[in-house]
Amino acid sequence: MTFSKAFDIASLHAAYASGWTAQEMIEEVFSRIAAIDDPGIFLSLAAKEDLLAEAKALGTFTPDSKPLWGIPFAAKDNIDVAGLPTTAACPDYAYVPTADATVVRLLKEAGALVIGKTNLDQFATGLVGVRTPHSIPRNAVDPTLVPGGSSSGSAVATAQGIVSFALGTDTAGSGRVPAGLNNIVGLKPSVGALSATGVVPACRTLDCVSIFALTVEDAHRVFTVAAQPDASDAYSRSMPAGHAMAAAPVLRIGVPARADREFFGDKAMEAAFDTALVTLAAMGHKLVELPFARFYETANLLYEGAWVAERYAAVKEFFDTKPESFHPVTHKIYTGAKALTAADAFAGMYRLQALKKELAPLIASVDVICVPTAPTHYTLADLEAEPIKANSRLGTYTNFVNLLDMCGIAVPTGARSDGLPSSVTMLAPFGKDGLTAALGADLHQRLAKDLGATGWPLPQAAEKPAEKAEGLIPVIVVGAHLSGMPLNRQLTDLDAKFLRAGTTAASYKLFALPNQTPPKPGLVRVDNGAAIAVEIWQLTPDGFGKFVNMIPSPMCIGTVFLDDGSSAKGFLVEPSALEGAEDITHLGGWRAYIASL
Amino acid sequence: MTFSKAFDIASLHAAYASGWTAQEMIEEVFSRIAAIDDPGIFLSLAAKEDLLAEAKALGTFTPDSKPLWGIPFAAKDNIDVAGLPTTAACPDYAYVPTADATVVRLLKEAGALVIGKTNLDQFATGLVGVRTPHSIPRNAVDPTLVPGGSSSGSAVATAQGIVSFALGTDTAGSGRVPAGLNNIVGLKPSVGALSATGVVPACRTLDCVSIFALTVEDAHRVFTVAAQPDASDAYSRSMPAGHAMAAAPVLRIGVPARADREFFGDKAMEAAFDTALVTLAAMGHKLVELPFARFYETANLLYEGAWVAERYAAVKEFFDTKPESFHPVTHKIYTGAKALTAADAFAGMYRLQALKKELAPLIASVDVICVPTAPTHYTLADLEAEPIKANSRLGTYTNFVNLLDMCGIAVPTGARSDGLPSSVTMLAPFGKDGLTAALGADLHQRLAKDLGATGWPLPQAAEKPAEKAEGLIPVIVVGAHLSGMPLNRQLTDLDAKFLRAGTTAASYKLFALPNQTPPKPGLVRVDNGAAIAVEIWQLTPDGFGKFVNMIPSPMCIGTVFLDDGSSAKGFLVEPSALEGAEDITHLGGWRAYIASL
Repeated sequence: MTFSKAFDIASLHAAYASGWTAQEMIEEVFSRIAAIDDPGIFLSLAAKEDLLAEAKALGTFTPDSKPLWGIPFAAKDNIDVAGLPTTAACPDYAYVPTADATVVRLLKEAGALVIGKTNLDQFATGLVGVRTPHSIPRNAVDPTLVPGGSSSGSAVATAQGIVSFALGTDTAGSGRVPAGLNNIVGLKPSVGALSATGVVPACRTLDCVSIFALTVEDAHRVFTVAAQPDASDAYSRSMPAGHAMAAAPVLRIGVPARADREFFGDKAMEAAFDTALVTLAAMGHKLVELPFARFYETANLLYEGAWVAERYAAVKEFFDTKPESFHPVTHKIYTGAKALTAADAFAGMYRLQALKKELAPLIASVDVICVPTAPTHYTLADLEAEPIKANSRLGTYTNFVNLLDMCGIAVPTGARSDGLPSSVTMLAPFGKDGLTAALGADLHQRLAKDLGATGWPLPQAAEKPAEKAEGLIPVIVVGAHLSGMPLNRQLTDLDAKFLRAGTTAASYKLFALPNQTPPKPGLVRVDNGAAIAVEIWQLTPDGFGKFVNMIPSPMCIGTVFLDDGSSAKGFLVEPSALEGAEDITHLGGWRAYIASL
Repeated sequence: MTFSKAFDIASLHAAYASGWTAQEMIEEVFSRIAAIDDPGIFLSLAAKEDLLAEAKALGTFTPDSKPLWGIPFAAKDNIDVAGLPTTAACPDYAYVPTADATVVRLLKEAGALVIGKTNLDQFATGLVGVRTPHSIPRNAVDPTLVPGGSSSGSAVATAQGIVSFALGTDTAGSGRVPAGLNNIVGLKPSVGALSATGVVPACRTLDCVSIFALTVEDAHRVFTVAAQPDASDAYSRSMPAGHAMAAAPVLRIGVPARADREFFGDKAMEAAFDTALVTLAAMGHKLVELPFARFYETANLLYEGAWVAERYAAVKEFFDTKPESFHPVTHKIYTGAKALTAADAFAGMYRLQALKKELAPLIASVDVICVPTAPTHYTLADLEAEPIKANSRLGTYTNFVNLLDMCGIAVPTGARSDGLPSSVTMLAPFGKDGLTAALGADLHQRLAKDLGATGWPLPQAAEKPAEKAEGLIPVIVVGAHLSGMPLNRQLTDLDAKFLRAGTTAASYKLFALPNQTPPKPGLVRVDNGAAIAVEIWQLTPDGFGKFVNMIPSPMCIGTVFLDDGSSAKGFLVEPSALEGAEDITHLGGWRAYIASL
């Protein structure tokens, strides 16, 4: 169903900027819920009057201080929202939390509004979305297909345009598979990047809160708000510096070797994946075929190995006392898990460690790995026939990811020849969420036309100026390191990113130094000086350390002040080097001097 | 018993340099074995004729290419030596490996010679040394005492001067406790630093091959040879850059808060620990009392929690088929382990993760943690009365270390009032083996007189220049970043390592800058200048990048030339900051200027 007002964040914020109100948005959300009329999506809804009051309390539209101002979202029903029951799709398990899960709190603080709690494969165990005692959420694109799970309701709510984004959880693939099956984006953060406090555990050592959205930009914006270290979650980790969306123009992209690709006979999915790869190559990236047997072996560990015992451990007392409360398939899985010994658990860990060791050089040989999100689509009828086998096949390209401590993002790659959605997932090691998102966004732009099942067109990526990436260190270059100059390569070899051109404060003199190869200027701060043209690049601390260490005498790195009042580290020169130097301050910069020669 | 020829590596190499031969050494080793006459030490010996042939095959004395040329060592009998049986002190378990364990191979390649395999607490399960079906090795200092375990034979062989060093393993404390009880050094490397390939596992996720030696220098030299990443061991890890022995003159040393110290009534051990702490403070270090309850809680996890299941998992088939082959105490422990479920295993891991999270800031607040190695001595009679309780108490200060991913080194701290040995262990996070060794060596020099039970005096530490560690970037500091100065903390917070004090080339002027808080000097290169006292620290590229980025105007980082002709990045100052600055070049350095105020 197509609603006239698009709910991606940029569109919603544009609407707010032109006078639409958050209260009107709430009314619209409830009318969409009624229009979609899928009783399988939500297990509980916030009271409309409460939401209207919250919307009103947001006050003036302030997207700068509240990046999610007035953005409606849904939370999978294994994530606590104060005042709404948490059931994990097991009615007997229900409790009403008094506090929000950490991620929900962070999103609310950024101005987002929780509409309701969504259906799931019970206890987040499954990739199909049908293991629920409630109605099965309808696949948003084709209701004869499974919606995918376990975060079924969150994916469908997003794909139908009811909410701008939704939280899921993703241990085996629950945040990616349903995204792939519903034509939306599924961001599976680095393990530990989003707090799991207030989330019903599946496998505590692997669980990730995940984000469904209509665009990569939206998913990444939510990620940026939510990815905060949390002392209350023992598995929470700080993200490394520089996880803003940014990718180099040329990446090495690992793909499963052709012989190792598995689509279970689905030629349309195979063709869609081929198209995605051809597109990536056309974008200038280098594709590298990787043997995939060990990835699949790792994937199998998740349900065949020790980790399924974590699922039982998470609800041990409840399962031991009320086994009849469980969905039959879930019950079967947990009964098997209960029988595992501690020695079995360690045997699984040893095997994983061996696989990690073996796969590490393969993973390190590329920047990103691109896989199909799901190998094929299944119908609801398929699932009734084979409830476990189809589930297991859906996890072909997802189950190994958290075990290998990788992040991933599933992005739609357009309709297949039969009109069903296709999707690929970009994977990378811990902390590379910005890289996978940047690449995913580029591919999404090239291959997808519309968002979820909404009929809304994919907004064109705004040509926005490069942002200062968090954790990166800016360095102001003045001479031989400027773009196109002989030493610029020293920056790019260290993966430096160009931020912008700029001008110093009017308190510098620039000299052409004698006896330098290649020719170099020297910048000196003085009482009465001029503004000098510079460029600002950015490096990781590691890259910056290496860069500074290779700066030869008489160059120095000190603090350089810019005309906008900011400052950063940049090139200066020792005064002893100025003897015999030509004052070129009047030219305003090194590029002008070189041009004058 | 005192043998005339000391077997620490320096003494042995000096003997070789003056004409003694490796064959004579082998003869000497066998005569010592006969003289000591302790049937509990060795479970098997290499054939003397084979050793004589190996000694001869070493050829010319070449300590530069073979840093362990002609050095005799023993290996705990859970470490494979090709051709000698591996039994783990369980005769029915015996097999004869055809290949050396990786560490044994590396040591042999460096010129060391394996004399034999040593007794242990069966399957390395125990800290006492009495859980063996063979004779119990006699404590080298006092035969009425337990030798400590599980690496009992290796510790005693070293303490008796039969070998220069010996390999042990250390999961709970098996490489530290027997070192402490036998007046020798016990180096417990960072987890994964030494390959476990060819070692009978105890807890595979935690096991460390460890090193017993008479001096810290010897232990660290063996460590340096043996610490190589090994693709065949899934738990092998590469060491971070810069693990050479080096410590800053002022360290923050965490110690258990007085109220949390536990000596089980042993006043002499308590007094010895106090002496060690007073000595560390007198050396200029800052002692910081840490609450220790969570460390003890972590320690308890090792035997009360899931990890004991790894011990059972390691010999599952053997235990299930031949339980009667086990020592009665070992049998009891493994039977308990066999009953643990996978859910129990994960519950233990979750608890450990929570403890790690809670302890991380405490551990990060100091450079090193200094604990007693063992809280007390036990007699053989004590152990017969309470075989498990005494064992568990011996692990008070050791059991938590591998679980928290720390390295440690036990160093003798001299005889207590009753003549029995005392010892402390220096602990630090993964990769800080060089730091703990450096500090341990300093303390050893100050408190210990003789080596093990040999009567040999502790050799005076050679005054050797600190080494430049590979991959680290040196930074020359001149003022407020010198050791003990207000901004030195900026370096140590970034894990900077003190390399050495130094002096610039005679081409600098030093100025006391006006209006700086804290006070700072400015170094400027000039044509006719003087030599200025500096310190050289080292940082990882990442740390160096962060460090440079926090340097405020008018300070710069440029190239500073030293009096030995070398140069490195270091502090300079912008010329514009010198207006009104006092020229203090004649004082020769910032420390002298501060002292003159």
